[in-house]
Amino acid sequence: MIFDPATDKPQDECGVFGIYSPQPADIAWLTYLGLFALQHRGQEAAGICVSDGERFLVEKDLGLVSQVFDETRLDKLRLGTARVGIGHVRYSTTGSNLRFNAQPLTVRTNKGILGLAHNGNFVNAREMRQEMLDDGVLFQTTNDSEVLLNRIARLSKLDLVEATARAMKEMRGGYAVVLMSRTQLLGFRDPNGVRPLCIGQRGDGAWVMASEPSALFSVGAKFVRDVAPGELVWADRDGLHSLMVIPGHQPTACSFEWIYFARADSFVDTVDVHEARIRMGQALALESHVDADIVVPVPDSGIGAAIGYARASGIHFDYGLYKNPYAGRTFIAPTQEARELKVKLKLSPTSAVRGKRVVLVDDSIVRGTTSRQIVNLLREAGATEVHFRVSSPPIKHPCFYGIDTAARKELVASTHTIEEIRAMIGADSLAFISEEGLRASIRGPGVCLACFNGQYPAGIPLENDLNKLALEV
Amino acid sequence: MIFDPATDKPQDECGVFGIYSPQPADIAWLTYLGLFALQHRGQEAAGICVSDGERFLVEKDLGLVSQVFDETRLDKLRLGTARVGIGHVRYSTTGSNLRFNAQPLTVRTNKGILGLAHNGNFVNAREMRQEMLDDGVLFQTTNDSEVLLNRIARLSKLDLVEATARAMKEMRGGYAVVLMSRTQLLGFRDPNGVRPLCIGQRGDGAWVMASEPSALFSVGAKFVRDVAPGELVWADRDGLHSLMVIPGHQPTACSFEWIYFARADSFVDTVDVHEARIRMGQALALESHVDADIVVPVPDSGIGAAIGYARASGIHFDYGLYKNPYAGRTFIAPTQEARELKVKLKLSPTSAVRGKRVVLVDDSIVRGTTSRQIVNLLREAGATEVHFRVSSPPIKHPCFYGIDTAARKELVASTHTIEEIRAMIGADSLAFISEEGLRASIRGPGVCLACFNGQYPAGIPLENDLNKLALEV
Amino acid sequence: MIFDPATDKPQDECGVFGIYSPQPADIAWLTYLGLFALQHRGQEAAGICVSDGERFLVEKDLGLVSQVFDETRLDKLRLGTARVGIGHVRYSTTGSNLRFNAQPLTVRTNKGILGLAHNGNFVNAREMRQEMLDDGVLFQTTNDSEVLLNRIARLSKLDLVEATARAMKEMRGGYAVVLMSRTQLLGFRDPNGVRPLCIGQRGDGAWVMASEPSALFSVGAKFVRDVAPGELVWADRDGLHSLMVIPGHQPTACSFEWIYFARADSFVDTVDVHEARIRMGQALALESHVDADIVVPVPDSGIGAAIGYARASGIHFDYGLYKNPYAGRTFIAPTQEARELKVKLKLSPTSAVRGKRVVLVDDSIVRGTTSRQIVNLLREAGATEVHFRVSSPPIKHPCFYGIDTAARKELVASTHTIEEIRAMIGADSLAFISEEGLRASIRGPGVCLACFNGQYPAGIPLENDLNKLALEV
Amino acid sequence: MIFDPATDKPQDECGVFGIYSPQPADIAWLTYLGLFALQHRGQEAAGICVSDGERFLVEKDLGLVSQVFDETRLDKLRLGTARVGIGHVRYSTTGSNLRFNAQPLTVRTNKGILGLAHNGNFVNAREMRQEMLDDGVLFQTTNDSEVLLNRIARLSKLDLVEATARAMKEMRGGYAVVLMSRTQLLGFRDPNGVRPLCIGQRGDGAWVMASEPSALFSVGAKFVRDVAPGELVWADRDGLHSLMVIPGHQPTACSFEWIYFARADSFVDTVDVHEARIRMGQALALESHVDADIVVPVPDSGIGAAIGYARASGIHFDYGLYKNPYAGRTFIAPTQEARELKVKLKLSPTSAVRGKRVVLVDDSIVRGTTSRQIVNLLREAGATEVHFRVSSPPIKHPCFYGIDTAARKELVASTHTIEEIRAMIGADSLAFISEEGLRASIRGPGVCLACFNGQYPAGIPLENDLNKLALEV
Repeated sequence: MIFDPATDKPQDECGVFGIYSPQPADIAWLTYLGLFALQHRGQEAAGICVSDGERFLVEKDLGLVSQVFDETRLDKLRLGTARVGIGHVRYSTTGSNLRFNAQPLTVRTNKGILGLAHNGNFVNAREMRQEMLDDGVLFQTTNDSEVLLNRIARLSKLDLVEATARAMKEMRGGYAVVLMSRTQLLGFRDPNGVRPLCIGQRGDGAWVMASEPSALFSVGAKFVRDVAPGELVWADRDGLHSLMVIPGHQPTACSFEWIYFARADSFVDTVDVHEARIRMGQALALESHVDADIVVPVPDSGIGAAIGYARASGIHFDYGLYKNPYAGRTFIAPTQEARELKVKLKLSPTSAVRGKRVVLVDDSIVRGTTSRQIVNLLREAGATEVHFRVSSPPIKHPCFYGIDTAARKELVASTHTIEEIRAMIGADSLAFISEEGLRASIRGPGVCLACFNGQYPAGIPLENDLNKLALEV
Repeated sequence: MIFDPATDKPQDECGVFGIYSPQPADIAWLTYLGLFALQHRGQEAAGICVSDGERFLVEKDLGLVSQVFDETRLDKLRLGTARVGIGHVRYSTTGSNLRFNAQPLTVRTNKGILGLAHNGNFVNAREMRQEMLDDGVLFQTTNDSEVLLNRIARLSKLDLVEATARAMKEMRGGYAVVLMSRTQLLGFRDPNGVRPLCIGQRGDGAWVMASEPSALFSVGAKFVRDVAPGELVWADRDGLHSLMVIPGHQPTACSFEWIYFARADSFVDTVDVHEARIRMGQALALESHVDADIVVPVPDSGIGAAIGYARASGIHFDYGLYKNPYAGRTFIAPTQEARELKVKLKLSPTSAVRGKRVVLVDDSIVRGTTSRQIVNLLREAGATEVHFRVSSPPIKHPCFYGIDTAARKELVASTHTIEEIRAMIGADSLAFISEEGLRASIRGPGVCLACFNGQYPAGIPLENDLNKLALEV
Repeated sequence: MIFDPATDKPQDECGVFGIYSPQPADIAWLTYLGLFALQHRGQEAAGICVSDGERFLVEKDLGLVSQVFDETRLDKLRLGTARVGIGHVRYSTTGSNLRFNAQPLTVRTNKGILGLAHNGNFVNAREMRQEMLDDGVLFQTTNDSEVLLNRIARLSKLDLVEATARAMKEMRGGYAVVLMSRTQLLGFRDPNGVRPLCIGQRGDGAWVMASEPSALFSVGAKFVRDVAPGELVWADRDGLHSLMVIPGHQPTACSFEWIYFARADSFVDTVDVHEARIRMGQALALESHVDADIVVPVPDSGIGAAIGYARASGIHFDYGLYKNPYAGRTFIAPTQEARELKVKLKLSPTSAVRGKRVVLVDDSIVRGTTSRQIVNLLREAGATEVHFRVSSPPIKHPCFYGIDTAARKELVASTHTIEEIRAMIGADSLAFISEEGLRASIRGPGVCLACFNGQYPAGIPLENDLNKLALEV
Repeated sequence: MIFDPATDKPQDECGVFGIYSPQPADIAWLTYLGLFALQHRGQEAAGICVSDGERFLVEKDLGLVSQVFDETRLDKLRLGTARVGIGHVRYSTTGSNLRFNAQPLTVRTNKGILGLAHNGNFVNAREMRQEMLDDGVLFQTTNDSEVLLNRIARLSKLDLVEATARAMKEMRGGYAVVLMSRTQLLGFRDPNGVRPLCIGQRGDGAWVMASEPSALFSVGAKFVRDVAPGELVWADRDGLHSLMVIPGHQPTACSFEWIYFARADSFVDTVDVHEARIRMGQALALESHVDADIVVPVPDSGIGAAIGYARASGIHFDYGLYKNPYAGRTFIAPTQEARELKVKLKLSPTSAVRGKRVVLVDDSIVRGTTSRQIVNLLREAGATEVHFRVSSPPIKHPCFYGIDTAARKELVASTHTIEEIRAMIGADSLAFISEEGLRASIRGPGVCLACFNGQYPAGIPLENDLNKLALEV
């Protein structure tokens, strides 16, 4: 049996990247660089698609960016004359885990060849797909993206920008998409701005779009602005253009971007991620103070909140859990014993916790299994008390906008009280940040808290069973 | 630079295989076995698709059957409960050489999930594709197969058999196709029967369809009959069914199946391949006798005709050219010198030719470059005369029905007289079999001789430049 | 060009692991688990060797543990009946970077088949090798280990333990070795204890030896004690045995184990690593105080010292540099521009440093190139001052005991004053911990400071040019 | 379960190749080319070693030449300035099937770095190895070659040529070896000339040594002469030199070279292989005539003898068994049914045998299992009689000179009469060529017939159980 040493985190699904250069550039390599910076957003598959106005090439496969692209494979895409490119890293959401679902998806249409990379989910994809199936359309993947591209293709009287705008109005959900033709790069975002997308520009004039500013910086671009919720932007030889397709919505960006997904050096919708995490930790400390000797983060995502907690509480921050940097690799585990060793392989207490009352700060609890093991590790290492603090509220509801939080029945907080969870994980005390505390910590636009409170700003699917969507092939 | 040691042969494009078993069977492995027997028909890609009525799985990739399918990959397809499967080996024709073009092609339609494997070409694919593009359909591959599947899907009011029959009527060209749903296996052949397809049955009742009887035998099936030109057959839990969709055409099977493509142990449309080759050799001997000491085949495809030539002429058959069985492997050749060594690597004269007047029998001459090198090798090895005899007429025209004979301008016989070719290849004499001699040797139904005489029984594309069809992705 | 995103750290060379179980056990998997925990000590090659008393199997190759061992390969070693095994992870020191140098090294001798895994260097290997070469011995690798094994084999009248003890007396340098026969596991350490080796025991009675206690814990063993400098221990069916082969030396364990190599959750010769790093940071703060706003570690190795610095100075600790967890992967970098981007790919400032006076804490400076880039990144991100603090003294001398610190001329501190280095890296101030401060922080046995002060406790090679040792094959 | 579709042939063990060029040349590529021509002599592993006088590089691995050497790997060896190189293809004999046993073996000795490639076996390797083990030598492989190299190294007062000559006198068995230092290429052959080795020269002056002349021709060299039994030759910048080390033996070349191993376009000790096979077939026809309709070879090795049989008997030669050219590839066979299908996958009768009395000509019968299946295939295809004729005498004894004929108890002819074998394989009649007929057909020097008559010209091992020699690692 092969598995990845345990995480018990929500899984982000995708990172997208696009670039349009007014003059020929090393588009494939720049896109590769951008994907490298977005690798944390999806480790299952990676792909790049480029065009020089004539040729239109794609390479994609299962694996990390560094595994999919060796020099030979990247070189196939390095047209000296390319101007447009998009890239994608993926963690599977709907659709099974097959290479045929890797992106960018490339198709030939009446608008020429198109490539598309997509982060998020369309909640009405199922109905749209069925309607088109009934109408004689065939589907080769289980990507929502194929549904979107078919909508665009069917609007055959319209040009690409118009057709895309029309399709945006038909599709509902949380999404951020980059789309390219031989001569244009388009980017757009759902009307609630659930999924992030920002715009940058390089010194040579090239326009860049990406899920996080970190990817802009990795290719030497400066941050220009975020794509607005409901906005469609496109770059071509005349520069950057914008169309507000679906105005007037209350923005509700995904709060998990700040809690866990985004890199600590990123900002999302202009709100700095590291600062937000510090504030979450501070809020947690104020909301659920406890007497203790040290504050220990679950690395790496708990670090910011732990620093905030330490500052607000006056308790020493310490490095109480060593994280094996190779623990993300494939690991062979043959026995039941192995399963119990797996968290140990990844996380190991340092001497800091010995004889100490520990405040342990993590960003979330999904199933709770890993949390229990970590608490246990700390106790075995001599911690006298373990007070668990979580910088997100209890996750009680599934996400329909592109995050894999596990099925509802697996969400420990949807079926247990906080006291029950505390007992289960074996902590001396357990506290989650409040929704108000979280909202205040992000201090940004409205945020989506659907997985905490069940209020879905962008609608939900008619039928919840997303597995039904899956094409077996 | 990497190349495969020289062949100067027409390239067959594909082999197809399908199986329907009334009870659960090891469908994936049987299909693998069938593809192994058809490997000579296509070495570029291989794929298998299976279903047990619920699940519908496909695995395909670039490479030989033995390279694409290791145990792990084949095991993924080995549902204990499968009943239907199809397989494909491919040599690329239209469409570039990408893994995305590997078959079976699998799609979701209003008729459920379908898998398709295809040998041949549709001459009106370009127009059909354009018409559908204009209508808002999108295409993800450059396979003709995707055009066909879209036609079937668009006939949304009809069931799968009816829609397939209707689509057969719309498509023109030379083709043999196996198509599967979760519960049915379909097979059909163009109205001229240009490309072959036959039916067999195993002792356990399973129905098998394949490009050649050899593949039936490899899975323990007995030959039942050929699919008739223009016929659609299908197997399901009620048995084998037939519909004559396009009756009344004069059959014109591809003559190259007997000349070169099919295995020596196969028969095509009930005409035995080895016997036909013997007769071709005999006809050649009668048409173009020459005094000589030995008859030498270019192995392996020239063996049958050489035996026939030897018998009719009374000249000794001998094994004058050793063929390195590893010469088909990838070979690294760095320099100009290397290119000249490459035929040597594959073919090497034995002592049989020393001091002898040699009749050299080959099945075809396309560009003539290899022929010149072989003649030269024989002379260097001491042959005193080399008389070149070819068991096909001069190839002057391209094939539009699925064979890659090279572009017309590269066909040496379309721009040179026989005497010019003789001088070019350095033979003492050169003769090709006559069209009449060939037709009589096959002694079967009408045969397609389009590449020799330019008479295309199944029409030609509106525009000849097939490359224009290619999607770059 | 392919390179690993920059590090400018001393490279540890190896981790070793061994296990002897009184009853049959899953030796191969336990060894794999131990190597996983030691992966940070060597990423170039990995290998495992096991025996069940009869069979003696080895698998090794270039790559990470997770790359070398997939399930198929590990299964080859999983004799149900094995009792002895050793494993090795390697970073190349002497000898080129070839698979033939991967360990364990396995040989057949008059003492039966032996397997050996080795951390460290023998300073007299060159002379020993030459002497044996002159005597008619042949060498197949460039491992020092082969020299050692030949010494053991040549002592043909002695049993394995006696011969090993004799060989220990002949070899000089810094080393820790595990050695196995079909029925015994031996471990030994140089008389100065330069390289670490400890002993543990599992609940089922199995004896374990490893470079770090973390590897003991990873297989469920408890720490028993360190192997003493100059001691030879061995486990067999009669239990664990010890022989003090070379008594009386002043122990001088490598100080870099605490500074950088060992995991934060390890202890070396009973001195806790994390606590030592905290004390180094505290000493640094006392020795070179500066007014500043935040203390920022270079992750991950600078974290402990930064926490210590923050505590002793009263300045806020903050997470100022995000480390991309995928940056250790192979990365394709085509241009000069790329080379400048490479540190950016790995490290990226968070908002914490904006407008702040930063104390940046790193564990060492070797060439200084990376340090300059990090300082520059912080300034670009808005740090108003950058004060560089280093938790090791300036490295001025090469290590001859198994650490690759780069050739002397590349050691920036051997050719530049501290003020010159400060100017070069662009810091506002620069300070290194003093030798006294370091020694006090480790508070353990005598430590080896040779790379700082040139005093080599275990001797040096007759000729320094270790490259001369290299076999080209 | 994975196996190679059945052969029931003696397995040749190795091919060797060496080249010395007076001026810098593309040694690695020429050696690769030579190995390609010798691929039929060993498919398990391949390796190349080159030197330019300074550098000494080796690459080797399990697999075919085309699998081991892709462009990247061959390029590593392509020193623009190389002058010496050797290569090896291997089928395992003694020693298990591990990559560590791949050749060339490269070692550092008092005579500098040496590389060695070896075909054959030393019958006294076991005693030599034990004697040296007792003396404190260690062994890392199970190659006989390592024994030889140790002998050479131990003669430390002598130069390489002298030491090699001395070692030849100590070792007994059947062998052909190429050995290189940085500046010399040596070749030598056992005193009986059991294993073949010949010398050629290229137009540019480069000296080439190889197991078969075909390999000389593949690199553009002309055949000069065979290395004489017991002779040592070497090439260096002064040209080609010779020393008759062990004169006066009766040459007894392995008869299986002509029967089966060597390419049909080769000659061995100046006796043409194809002609010898023709004569074997003629002798068989004279010795065991039968009335029949066609003579059918088991392809490919039976072709020559079948042609000879047809000529001497006046019965038509025909192509009665199609051989699938892809059948040598790895093949997955899951069930008992599969095992029965495996010969079918490789060999398939053509229509030629239907209704015919067939003389089936094969080169040897080892276990008889495959023979039975082929006879059965012919009967199923309609052959009315099958008369089995074998161009070698019954194999009753194992080979100790480098051929894997299977253990004695598996040799069907050592435990059964000819009539019993006939009944077992189901033939209507069965005849083997006589020893006299074989000897007369080869018409060359004395030949080794040990596997037929148990007379071992070069001695046998003290103990027969060669497996005892095996190092498990």
